[in-house]
Amino acid sequence: MARPRFDAAFRSVLLDLFLWRRDVRRFRPEGLPDDVLERLIRTACLAPSVGLSEPWRFVIVNSPARRGAIRANFERCNADALAAQPADRRGGYARLKLAGLDDAPCHLAVFADATTGQGRGLGRRTMPETIAYSVVMAIHTLWLAARAEGIGVGWVSILDPEQVKAELDVAPDWTLIGYLCVGYPESEDDRPALERDGWERRRPAASVILVR
Amino acid sequence: MARPRFDAAFRSVLLDLFLWRRDVRRFRPEGLPDDVLERLIRTACLAPSVGLSEPWRFVIVNSPARRGAIRANFERCNADALAAQPADRRGGYARLKLAGLDDAPCHLAVFADATTGQGRGLGRRTMPETIAYSVVMAIHTLWLAARAEGIGVGWVSILDPEQVKAELDVAPDWTLIGYLCVGYPESEDDRPALERDGWERRRPAASVILVR
Repeated sequence: MARPRFDAAFRSVLLDLFLWRRDVRRFRPEGLPDDVLERLIRTACLAPSVGLSEPWRFVIVNSPARRGAIRANFERCNADALAAQPADRRGGYARLKLAGLDDAPCHLAVFADATTGQGRGLGRRTMPETIAYSVVMAIHTLWLAARAEGIGVGWVSILDPEQVKAELDVAPDWTLIGYLCVGYPESEDDRPALERDGWERRRPAASVILVR
Repeated sequence: MARPRFDAAFRSVLLDLFLWRRDVRRFRPEGLPDDVLERLIRTACLAPSVGLSEPWRFVIVNSPARRGAIRANFERCNADALAAQPADRRGGYARLKLAGLDDAPCHLAVFADATTGQGRGLGRRTMPETIAYSVVMAIHTLWLAARAEGIGVGWVSILDPEQVKAELDVAPDWTLIGYLCVGYPESEDDRPALERDGWERRRPAASVILVR
């Protein structure tokens, strides 16, 4: 395979990709073309993984009944989260749209299989959490590849992960890493929705760097 | 800010970036130009984070004494891992080069601060592990941005993470996510080192996709 050239023009657009990726919660209704999701998953499988364990497991959720169970799971968890907010933040929390479960044409649950023999345990003896981290990098790869096609991804974490496993009938020893909504976004932006909505602001990068 | 265009030519090179990223363990000795590491860290801070919590904390490790302590930490953990291999794999394991700690001009330890008030807890009530996952995506962002400049990253996970915290004198409630070696790689490749070295092979993506 010919060695690729990554030039300044590519790096500039790559930076734009990082700047304009977003966590999307508002989707247009049209579905993705055939096989696009499968292609994005194949790209996700190029992510790094500890010991080449490739512990990612992708579950495409199409069943309306299962999607309904996930939506109910989210509603319960989000109601609990709202109730746990301090009184002065509750109104602001309630106004946020925190998931696109109703609009997104594709739902994708991504799990880690820590029982996999692949990789023969290499690199995960002292930090077994690197299995989960490998799956996170697969999700992030899919996210970036999708955004480069104009497809948005929203990561829903306001879920009871054990219930998700039951609702999707997957192997009991898998771990839910992320539940993704995927589809065409209503809009594009270079600012996070939570910043636009006044929930939180970004901090300067210099404040998170130490030298030892 | 002008809305960027991600065209087919960009997507093709982006796919090359995913294909030619590597976990690098063999580095050329020359250092990075001034400020490159800080610039890569700023790019990493564009990663998604749960509730816009930005929980990543980057520790640039320059002190020879601290680097020596990390190297000794790795040597102990790697000796344990070698001893735990089945007899028929031990020779193969011993031949692998699993870290570039001696060669890499830059060492970067990346931590998560789960105590951060930023984000006000949003999105991490039922899945608090999303704090760590946010930091993983920052590392992956840095990894891709570095590779696009011809700079290699190697993630060292064969470490006792509590000892790393002590060796680097960081806040006790931080969590080590990854210890990175950064520098110019000796070579480029589109195949993982563990595959080239005969340790493990990739599996077909179709084998990790379910439909529900």
